[in-house]
Parts: sequence; C-alpha cells; structure tokens
Amino acid sequence: MGQRSGDPSTPARPAAPDEGIGAGELTLATRNHGLPLEALRHDVTPPGLHYVLTHYDIPYVPNAGAWRLAVDGQVCVPLDLSLADLLSFPQVTTRVTLECAGNGRALLTPRPLGQPWLVEAVGTADWTGVPLRLLLAEAGADPAAVDVVFTGADHGVERGIEQDYRRALPLAVALGDDPQVLVATAMNGAPLPPQHGRPLRLIVPGWYGMAHVKWLRSVTVSARPFTGFQQTVAYRVRRAADEEGEPVTRIAPRALLVPPGFPDFMSRTRVVRPGRVRLFGRAWSGQAPVSSVEVSTDSGASWAPAVLAPAMDGQRWAWRGWHHDWAPAPGEYGVGARATDSAGSTQPLEQCWNRGGFANNAVCFVQVVCVGDGSSP
Amino acid sequence: MGQRSGDPSTPARPAAPDEGIGAGELTLATRNHGLPLEALRHDVTPPGLHYVLTHYDIPYVPNAGAWRLAVDGQVCVPLDLSLADLLSFPQVTTRVTLECAGNGRALLTPRPLGQPWLVEAVGTADWTGVPLRLLLAEAGADPAAVDVVFTGADHGVERGIEQDYRRALPLAVALGDDPQVLVATAMNGAPLPPQHGRPLRLIVPGWYGMAHVKWLRSVTVSARPFTGFQQTVAYRVRRAADEEGEPVTRIAPRALLVPPGFPDFMSRTRVVRPGRVRLFGRAWSGQAPVSSVEVSTDSGASWAPAVLAPAMDGQRWAWRGWHHDWAPAPGEYGVGARATDSAGSTQPLEQCWNRGGFANNAVCFVQVVCVGDGSSP
Repeated sequence: MGQRSGDPSTPARPAAPDEGIGAGELTLATRNHGLPLEALRHDVTPPGLHYVLTHYDIPYVPNAGAWRLAVDGQVCVPLDLSLADLLSFPQVTTRVTLECAGNGRALLTPRPLGQPWLVEAVGTADWTGVPLRLLLAEAGADPAAVDVVFTGADHGVERGIEQDYRRALPLAVALGDDPQVLVATAMNGAPLPPQHGRPLRLIVPGWYGMAHVKWLRSVTVSARPFTGFQQTVAYRVRRAADEEGEPVTRIAPRALLVPPGFPDFMSRTRVVRPGRVRLFGRAWSGQAPVSSVEVSTDSGASWAPAVLAPAMDGQRWAWRGWHHDWAPAPGEYGVGARATDSAGSTQPLEQCWNRGGFANNAVCFVQVVCVGDGSSP
Repeated sequence: MGQRSGDPSTPARPAAPDEGIGAGELTLATRNHGLPLEALRHDVTPPGLHYVLTHYDIPYVPNAGAWRLAVDGQVCVPLDLSLADLLSFPQVTTRVTLECAGNGRALLTPRPLGQPWLVEAVGTADWTGVPLRLLLAEAGADPAAVDVVFTGADHGVERGIEQDYRRALPLAVALGDDPQVLVATAMNGAPLPPQHGRPLRLIVPGWYGMAHVKWLRSVTVSARPFTGFQQTVAYRVRRAADEEGEPVTRIAPRALLVPPGFPDFMSRTRVVRPGRVRLFGRAWSGQAPVSSVEVSTDSGASWAPAVLAPAMDGQRWAWRGWHHDWAPAPGEYGVGARATDSAGSTQPLEQCWNRGGFANNAVCFVQVVCVGDGSSP
C-alpha cells in the first residue's frame, strides 16, 4: 500500500547521511532494551537484564491457565493443549544464548531504520519446556510436509501489513534433536515473564531471536513453504530492495567484553588506572562451537589470544567465558574481542552492510582512557 | 576541569536545533529502559518491565551475604550491619510508584542531553525493608543534624567528577513516618534484582528516582548540608547554567494510558476500529493524592472526566487506575490524559523547560488512527 494521510506504516529504508535517530527509533529504544554489558559477568542472565525486543505490544495474560496451544495443519490428530497438558510431556532444560538478528544495526553506515541496537541485544537463560518433536510426533505430522509455522498472540501492522507475529522453521529443523527445539514454559526455573512470552514461547537454540516466537498460540504443519511477512519480507539479507535475499537463520560468531574500569555517565567512555586489568567476556556462535577468542587493545592493529573457559558439557548453545590480562599505561585505547568458531567463521573488522541491518557481527571497540595513578579522570 | 584530549567527560548542554540523538544518548537508551506502556495494565509491574536507570555500571554482587551497611556520622553508636542484621528489624512492605526525574526529557525543545526518555520511565512495585527511622534510632542519630547522606556502590565519572553515586535527604524526611523511608531488601516478595539495587536500596515514597539510592553501602548523618554532585550540580531545576536552581524532590502529577488498539512496528502509531474502546491507564503524584483524571481525544482541545478506580487503603504511594469509554469513528486522533492532585497541581499542556530536563509532566498525546470496519490499516 502507498502512503496515505493517516497511514501508520512507512516502508523500510536506510537513514539519510547525518539523519539522527528519529521518533520511531527512539520509541523502540526506550521500550526495548539490551543487556547492560557489565551483566556479561553472570553465567545466566537475570531476566530483567536479558535483551528484549517485541515487534508489537506485549500481550496481557492475567490467566495463564486458560491459554491453549493448537498443533494443526498436516497432522493425523490435531492437538489443543493447555499448559497442564504440556507439562505432562517430558521436560528438557537447555542453556541458550539468544541474540537479536538486528544486533549491531545502529553501527552500520548508512543506518537501516529499525530498533537501533548497538551490540547489547543478547542474553543467556536456562529454558525449560517440551521438545517440539514430541508434540509433532503426538499429532502425527506428515513427514512430507515442508514447513512448520508458529503464530504468536502479538498483533500489529508493519509496512502496511496487519498481522499476528508469525515465523516458520523447515520441518527437519522442527524435528531435529541437535539442537532440539523447545516449547518453553519456564525461564531460569520460573514461569516466563510477560516480555519473554508468558506463558509459552519457542526456543530454537543457535538461531537469531526472530525464530523464538513468543506468546505461542499455534504450531501449523504446512505442505507448502511459508511466505508470511516475517519470513519473506522482513528478516532477509538484501543489499538492494528488489532482491529476494537470503533468509536470516543461525547466529554468526561474536565476542563481547565486560567494559573495564568505570564509565563516564554520558560518553560511556571507560576509565582505568595503570596496573593489571583482567579483561573478561563471553563468546558465542550458533553456527559451530567457538574455537578461539582474540583481544586487541589498539583498535584492531594487533591481536593476542584470550584464555577460553572450559567448554561445559551440555552447554553447546550457551556463550563461553574468556579472559585476557592487560597492563595498560596512561593513554587511550580501543579494546575489542573477536570470536572464531570451529567452522572457521570469524568476525570482520569492516561492516557487511545490508538493508535490514541483520547479523552485523563486525568487531566493536570499547573506548578506554587509562589515567595516571592519583590523577582524576 | 576543562576538555582535554582523552577527557571522557563532557559538560551538560541542550542539543543544538535539529541535533539528532547522539552516540552517548543512544548507549544510555539501549542499556536503560522504560515501561512498555501496555504494561500499565499490571497493578504491580513485573521486575523486567519496571523502568531502570543506572548512572554507572550495575555492581556485580555474587555473594549478598557478605554485604555490609554502615550507619555512621553524627550518631551515638555507629552500626555495621549484615543483611541478616537488617532482617532482625521490623519489616514493612509499601507499594510505591517510582518515576525517573528525567521522564519526558526527550520531548523538550531544545532537548537536554542525557538519558532520552519519552514518557515511559515509571513502574510500581511492592518494596519490603526496614524503616530507615528505626536504624537511625538504633544508632542514635543527632537530632540537631541536617542531612542524611546515602552512598551506593556504583562508581563513575560525570562532568569530570569521579564519584560513588551519593544523595542526601533532610533529616526530617529520613525520620518521617508518612512517607516512611525504607532500606529495602525485597521487590515483589523476592530479593532485589541486580538492576534494582541487589542486595539493598533506599525507597523514598513519593520522590523521583534519584533519591532511591541503589546498592546502598552507607547512611551517614551529617551536621552540614550535603553538597555532593548529585545534590547541588545534577538534579536541580535551572533555566540558566549559572543559577543555583531548585532541588528536584517529589514527583509531579502525571497520567498515562495503555495505548489503545495495536501498533505499527516502526511509527508506533496506534490502529483501532470503530466501536467502543475502553481507554485505561494509571495516574500518580508524589505531592498529594490524585483527585481527578481527564481524557482528551482531540489533542487537548476538549476534555472529559475519566472514572477513577477506588483509592486502596495503604496504597497512597502507588498509582491509581482510571478508565474512560470512547467510541471513535474513522479518522485520526491525539489521545491523552491529565492528572490533578488534591493539592491542586495538574499537568501543563506546554513544556516547562529546564536545562536538566527534569519533572517534565506536560501532557503527551498518543497518535491513533481509526480505520473503517474491514479496512486494512
């Protein structure tokens, strides 16, 4: 549809040169939020610190006991399940690092308009739920089907299309057991908070956040490829508006560090004093296990290997800790880290621009000032 | 101190005309967050939806059992208290609506640089803790003292001043029993989340957020007025930089509504269809109880009274619900609400600008498009 008077929707576009953050972007930035990077210290992110992105409103669900999940479409026996029904299936808990596909978007030039993430749209939680493959087996999903479509209760309009939030996975992914897709009812051992999908959400370990449909109402087995807005219009990697583009799927490797020292309130520049500074951070990849992390304190001119924390059994889908000892002298530094995974993927130093601002895992440097002992910053 | 090369701090200033949101403001906006306005539905805000603002880093406190609180200064017997010690005092639970003093800042023209809040920096929780007056009585605070100074564990630099976050209350306020200031150890019946002050914070019902010192380490009774940065430099209402200004204290009245209908993802314009729409929201004032709420659907040209929910016993310091039924025809609307309290304060339609962007409670209108039945937005 075109632009009419009163039309609430605008087409996707990159910002003009020097175009500041606009009203829509600011509204998104004040209601959604990232992980304050110092919270990378926590192995498991406390819920209020885990990143949150919602396309539309967070549904208000005062009575989770009345929630129903439909499993339908190309199945032998459609299911209509309550939370109690779901809890009668075997339960699995998986530690998963979740990252928004748009993480890094606001660092791109030109900046694609959308949620203006810097690098903080990430978090790790223990998710508990029923393996999706058990529900699909119970319903008797047609093995010749193509996609499984997931519908959330969140409803809105986006680029002129009124919709429930809806995404699909290929049947083979939905039936997979490594990773095992979950229909989750608990986060860190407690019922899901409203902003994380109360009472039900999908968890797809290793995939960017758009796949983890929240406020899940139906699971529909489809004989045809799903062509909904969030699958074929949004969440595609395109350089030109008229390309079909590549779908956004698994998380590219990234390492981030707990910013060292202490911050200036407004510039967020960090201040450290001379002497040993232990740099600590996390690294993850949804494509293959992280195999190494390197650290640079000179904005990428040189790199040194970091020490990886031991890989933990059963935590393939969670971030991995790392550290590196640094002894700065007074001066200015650009401190960053880069992860490489066992498939050989690593983080670029230069941006790989695309129109949606997806999967921008270019290395980002924290500005650090080391002041002399006894000097004020 | 002046601006040197590598100086992490910059002075406070208003944005230039047409100056977009800058890097520092965006970093603040992605790590702090407001209440998504649809969460006004909840009487008590779930912790991850309550607004959060931290000046510096959130301290990492893996072992709350080792935390100590000092009560010192002009006292007969200095105290050095563990969490267990605090729990041996009588415990009080109070439902409190907390709002950031900078709420509304980014709507001002010119925009003061800082955390760029629109109107969503609010939340309501049940806070449990020891009345501060009991701790001051136990220590034997000097009744001739002037201020009580509260020091948090959060440390940073702000406009060139390296500091622990520190604020004071007049002794009479600290000793008051209506409102009763709390040293809180629990939020909504659970230990404080890291971002809300784990393991200890101050709660000062009716005051803006800057008074509710988080990660509380010491309570110091002072014979002289406190002149620290957050008391005499920041958090003053000034029109000119060289004014002494008025201190920011109690929360000015405000009403907000759950945005009706559903949103466009990017513009956040709301879409409704013709027929009855029940507008619902909350109203609060830290100065006096809310006495009325009015609603406008024509951007303030005319106003109609809303129906206030009954005042709840013992909930003077929490927001109050209200509703108003509306029957829109197709068209465009600016929908807003305005609260008045029993001291006669109300919300202005025009901004009252000040350099820090504090206490801007001007009425804000939600843009709503009513589309015909069966029409797409």
